Amino acid sequence: MTENKIPYKIYLEESEMPQAWYNVRADMTTKPAPLLNPATGEPMTAEQLEGVFCRELVAQELDNDTRYIPIPQEIRDFYKMYRPSPLVRAYCLEEKLDTPAKIYYKFEGNNTSGSHKLNSAIAQAYYAKNQGLKGVTTETGAGQWGTALAMACGYLGLDCKVYMVKCSYEQKPFRREVMRTYGATVTPSPSPTTEVGRKILAEDPETTGSLGCAISEAVEDATTHEGYRYVLGSVLNQVLLHQSVVGLESKIALDKYGVVPDIIIGCAGGGSNLGGLISPFMGEMLRGEREYKFIAVEPASCPSLTRGVYAYDFCDTGKVCPLAKMYTLGSGFIPSANHAGGLRYHGMSPVLSELYHEGLMEARSVEQTKVFEAAEYFARVEGILPAPESSHAIRVAIDEALRCKETGEEKTILFGLTGTGYFDLYAYQKFNDGQMDDYFPTDEELAASFAKLPKLD
Amino acid sequence: MTENKIPYKIYLEESEMPQAWYNVRADMTTKPAPLLNPATGEPMTAEQLEGVFCRELVAQELDNDTRYIPIPQEIRDFYKMYRPSPLVRAYCLEEKLDTPAKIYYKFEGNNTSGSHKLNSAIAQAYYAKNQGLKGVTTETGAGQWGTALAMACGYLGLDCKVYMVKCSYEQKPFRREVMRTYGATVTPSPSPTTEVGRKILAEDPETTGSLGCAISEAVEDATTHEGYRYVLGSVLNQVLLHQSVVGLESKIALDKYGVVPDIIIGCAGGGSNLGGLISPFMGEMLRGEREYKFIAVEPASCPSLTRGVYAYDFCDTGKVCPLAKMYTLGSGFIPSANHAGGLRYHGMSPVLSELYHEGLMEARSVEQTKVFEAAEYFARVEGILPAPESSHAIRVAIDEALRCKETGEEKTILFGLTGTGYFDLYAYQKFNDGQMDDYFPTDEELAASFAKLPKLD
Repeated sequence: MTENKIPYKIYLEESEMPQAWYNVRADMTTKPAPLLNPATGEPMTAEQLEGVFCRELVAQELDNDTRYIPIPQEIRDFYKMYRPSPLVRAYCLEEKLDTPAKIYYKFEGNNTSGSHKLNSAIAQAYYAKNQGLKGVTTETGAGQWGTALAMACGYLGLDCKVYMVKCSYEQKPFRREVMRTYGATVTPSPSPTTEVGRKILAEDPETTGSLGCAISEAVEDATTHEGYRYVLGSVLNQVLLHQSVVGLESKIALDKYGVVPDIIIGCAGGGSNLGGLISPFMGEMLRGEREYKFIAVEPASCPSLTRGVYAYDFCDTGKVCPLAKMYTLGSGFIPSANHAGGLRYHGMSPVLSELYHEGLMEARSVEQTKVFEAAEYFARVEGILPAPESSHAIRVAIDEALRCKETGEEKTILFGLTGTGYFDLYAYQKFNDGQMDDYFPTDEELAASFAKLPKLD
Repeated sequence: MTENKIPYKIYLEESEMPQAWYNVRADMTTKPAPLLNPATGEPMTAEQLEGVFCRELVAQELDNDTRYIPIPQEIRDFYKMYRPSPLVRAYCLEEKLDTPAKIYYKFEGNNTSGSHKLNSAIAQAYYAKNQGLKGVTTETGAGQWGTALAMACGYLGLDCKVYMVKCSYEQKPFRREVMRTYGATVTPSPSPTTEVGRKILAEDPETTGSLGCAISEAVEDATTHEGYRYVLGSVLNQVLLHQSVVGLESKIALDKYGVVPDIIIGCAGGGSNLGGLISPFMGEMLRGEREYKFIAVEPASCPSLTRGVYAYDFCDTGKVCPLAKMYTLGSGFIPSANHAGGLRYHGMSPVLSELYHEGLMEARSVEQTKVFEAAEYFARVEGILPAPESSHAIRVAIDEALRCKETGEEKTILFGLTGTGYFDLYAYQKFNDGQMDDYFPTDEELAASFAKLPKLD
């Protein structure tokens, strides 16, 4: 098929949609390091993890060997309501940039949660329901994960308790209303309703919160209430597994037209989108079948890959979670409240951390004013108002396309457009008013944070 | 093809997308009444209309004969960025309602403007650009039309000035920011920047505004600035023409699977969505090829079809526009500020008014608390958070499906899901908090408004 026959948007038929998730760990030579019990320093057992997480999800979390894990029919039916998501050929962007590069993006924003998060939310809620639980607890930062989980729980009739990072809760009252409309209860974090929340508030009453705090509260809530478990929207191996549907669909769509990307770009907070998007491509590279250039893009204000250390750390601020080996800024690190949107997590998915550590992936950090410039440019040219998170990937995709313009290379770029910015207009307003600024943690700040990493021996 | 092979979502291939708009007026025996010059009572000439509207759009406005009008390539290319929109089989809703009815909806919310309005916005902006104009002015109520026009103008590099109904401006600050992000300037209406705005403010300084006021201001702005014309997102014949793309795509998608709807339902404010959705089906009925039941759904608080009169009236509050023959509540009628969302216009498309007058279409009015009940139900079952406007259609679609449950009839229902409710969370919040109430104009109120209709002889 010739290049010019590629439509603006490639949709898969229902029959072409993936029937199994791809588990990239099965193809990794060095597996991601296991979660450790902070009390003993020993790997967490399934039994220990099942006190916090649903049974089936624990099995997925620990499974480093099964390459394809079937997607239950009920989840595939739910996927059919909002998937397949379109793989878009960015003809307008290419023309506007006057680049020889060919740009594609996988757009995950066409559902009410506004992002890819729904892919894992429905899976996690399904397994919770299947286990006979009453409900689940979680944290949300920018609000996309909380909304996704509220939708999934609303659909299945599960109770849903969301701890929302306080600065997002205040900047995004309407996010809260979406979650309420789907039947969830939403609490600003840190809150006085949990022990860990009270402790954090006592130490810093003015804190704007962080994902790390909110995780601690949600875990405490789940483990102190009968019939509840905690679910997490990123970082974990199981989440990357569920999000592999993004990469699988992208690959099937590109394969239909014989297109092979040279560069694959995704924003990276905890790693759910990036991990999902690159998984099947990374699998090919791990198996020696093909070479790709992968770029993780993170905010300069929360640069876990580019300025963090690869070490065991707590997943949460309150230190109630297991230890994970990952690139981290330290579990006490809280990015500036001036930083818009998500990608505020101190650590990075252990799977992606290991891949990055092995040199299989690059990472770049970008300043938020540059990110919003790219976001506005993209919105006007491609018509979609992107989420600030997604716009990190747009920034680097544009930079790479402009590099192609200089060199004349006709590279094929694929990036993940994880979501829409309808609930980020507060940040857009700051940008429109010229009141947005950039923020970088200082070396001293990071060193102080690293000094507090847990000591293992 | 058997019924159970119908996917959750039917997407057309690019090659199946309509290449021409369908002009339902060509098949109407009695054409919609012409716009009249209020000064003379004579039909407006093309020359007179061209002082306000773009040239090519005037030609479309006056063309009652050409059945198919080609869609220019540039507009078709823009359509490819966000169209075809999915035709969704509401399997989950059917199951939840336990109805033998088969429910389909055409979902127009998957673009940043969040509604079908973009279909006409890009067409109108294109013709303005083609005519060498500097920019366009318009009004917006709920904000969907203004956002759509801002996007279209941002894409084409046209200046865009939006007068936004004051109560929406205040309830939806983020709508304003989307428009600004696309480069538009947004003014709350009534405003002191126009003569008509100053007059309306002098009479009622506390007014929350209305579409009728905002239209007057936008028209004054356009006609007093060189290189500008006024564009309107509903009511006009040209808008229904552009919106026929919604109905055409729906029909092509249903035809592919041999599905024929029995009942076609759309919300109706000015009539752009309903007119576009039903056009090709109505054409079949007008040509005697097939029978359908069409239902226009309007808010009980602004019931132009069900409680209005069919008469010549001003399109705007300031009486600067031509007279149109339509079902109207009187150009001075302003619906309660308690009414959420759009559908606040005092009149109805002359095309739809004539079809309704001839008994070719039914109309129902619904209370907003019932509408939000349906909206929340739909959101939880089908996953999409609907706009309040669209939820009027959902309400009646559910009512019809429940009637089928009683009678056992396996009717096929098609409704227009015009948009998403991401910017309507203020209204959802009121509903979630149990603080939403219903409002009906009294007979005395309406009689007083009708008494002020222009007298023609």
